[in-house]
Amino acid sequence: MPTSPVDALVFDVFGTVVDWREGVARDGAAFLARHGVPADGHAFADAWRRHYSPAMEGVRSGARPFVPLDTLHRENLLAILPAFGIDPGTVPEDELQWLIRAWHRLEPWPDSVEGLTRLKARYIIAPLSNGNFRLLLDMAKYAGLPWDAIMGAELAQAYKPQPQAYLRTAELLDLPPERICLAAAHNGDLAAARRCGFKTAFIARPREFGPDQKTDLAAEQDWDWVAGDIVALASMLGA
Amino acid sequence: MPTSPVDALVFDVFGTVVDWREGVARDGAAFLARHGVPADGHAFADAWRRHYSPAMEGVRSGARPFVPLDTLHRENLLAILPAFGIDPGTVPEDELQWLIRAWHRLEPWPDSVEGLTRLKARYIIAPLSNGNFRLLLDMAKYAGLPWDAIMGAELAQAYKPQPQAYLRTAELLDLPPERICLAAAHNGDLAAARRCGFKTAFIARPREFGPDQKTDLAAEQDWDWVAGDIVALASMLGA
Repeated sequence: MPTSPVDALVFDVFGTVVDWREGVARDGAAFLARHGVPADGHAFADAWRRHYSPAMEGVRSGARPFVPLDTLHRENLLAILPAFGIDPGTVPEDELQWLIRAWHRLEPWPDSVEGLTRLKARYIIAPLSNGNFRLLLDMAKYAGLPWDAIMGAELAQAYKPQPQAYLRTAELLDLPPERICLAAAHNGDLAAARRCGFKTAFIARPREFGPDQKTDLAAEQDWDWVAGDIVALASMLGA
Repeated sequence: MPTSPVDALVFDVFGTVVDWREGVARDGAAFLARHGVPADGHAFADAWRRHYSPAMEGVRSGARPFVPLDTLHRENLLAILPAFGIDPGTVPEDELQWLIRAWHRLEPWPDSVEGLTRLKARYIIAPLSNGNFRLLLDMAKYAGLPWDAIMGAELAQAYKPQPQAYLRTAELLDLPPERICLAAAHNGDLAAARRCGFKTAFIARPREFGPDQKTDLAAEQDWDWVAGDIVALASMLGA
């Protein structure tokens, strides 16, 4: 029996496993149309996403206690609505909740379910995402992602790339970091995981941010594996 | 579309979903035979299990910090070996690890996988067990339990029936307690969940502790649902 290079694969999710931009643009466009705003759903998704890292930075820096990503998504949504000509105070709570949960209803990339299903037969697979627990759980049910468990920032009470996000994951899996591989479309995430002792796999997603993407177009370090998609990664790992 | 009485079902696992006694007896018997001990595997399983609640009580009382159940299982195993004529110091570490992980390799009751699969189509389903995260993950892969997520004591850093074990689960699911049902074969577990606001379902498992079981033979309060097994519960819940 061949020896496996790792026991578990944990995945970045937004961009790596699911296409957040198209999903948020879809629901954003419906929302804007209801409010009579002639803006494009992709511009709306991009504006919302631009607040993502700065919002988490407030938690990472210790300026505020940990809050789940749904909370940050809500704050960020309220912050961008005026730029689209919408007064947040006029949006019913139910509609806000529905729109915030657009991030729970994202489509997988075409290779994701097949690749994960193959990997699951040989490895433990789980998300290691900054999404909150319920977000990742809803996403798995919506998109048919066959995770063995839901993991991520909320269990660690720390957002990637803080070391605690990776190290708490290793602790819950009861594995030394070198027996876990992080798979991600983002070089910065992989660099942080490697500093914690994880193995690393780069999954190329050059259209995550749309046709004009400038970052993370290719692997920027000698990651342990570099794959065009998750099916290709499964083949590399004998799954 | 009919309204669902809850959004999520969380399950006690040892005894409710899997048959811990037969599984531990099976691996215990193999272990005893290797060491030339003519004892019965069931007596070994029962002896090991008798230390289960007292060991957790040390954590619940605050006498020691939270440790995962694998750690308590190890301590309890070392404590009972002399009564079976085995010097713990003579058992290789690999063999100890294998035996401790008998609790990760337990068979489901005959109705568990079918019942859970039906419930999963309509509800969020997860374990809410005192087993540690990796134990529950391994068990799910071994027994084919189709959980949406792995939950339980280790995520709350508190053992049932401490309120924090239930309340942290509700927090991670982002649901009010009354939208979650605990399903368990143990009246005490259900009583604690009810005190936290959960709905409750009793699953009868009158042979969990073997043919001479004296406790938890029937529902002892007016639980929201009382079912003969998990398939019956699924039918009651329209799943």
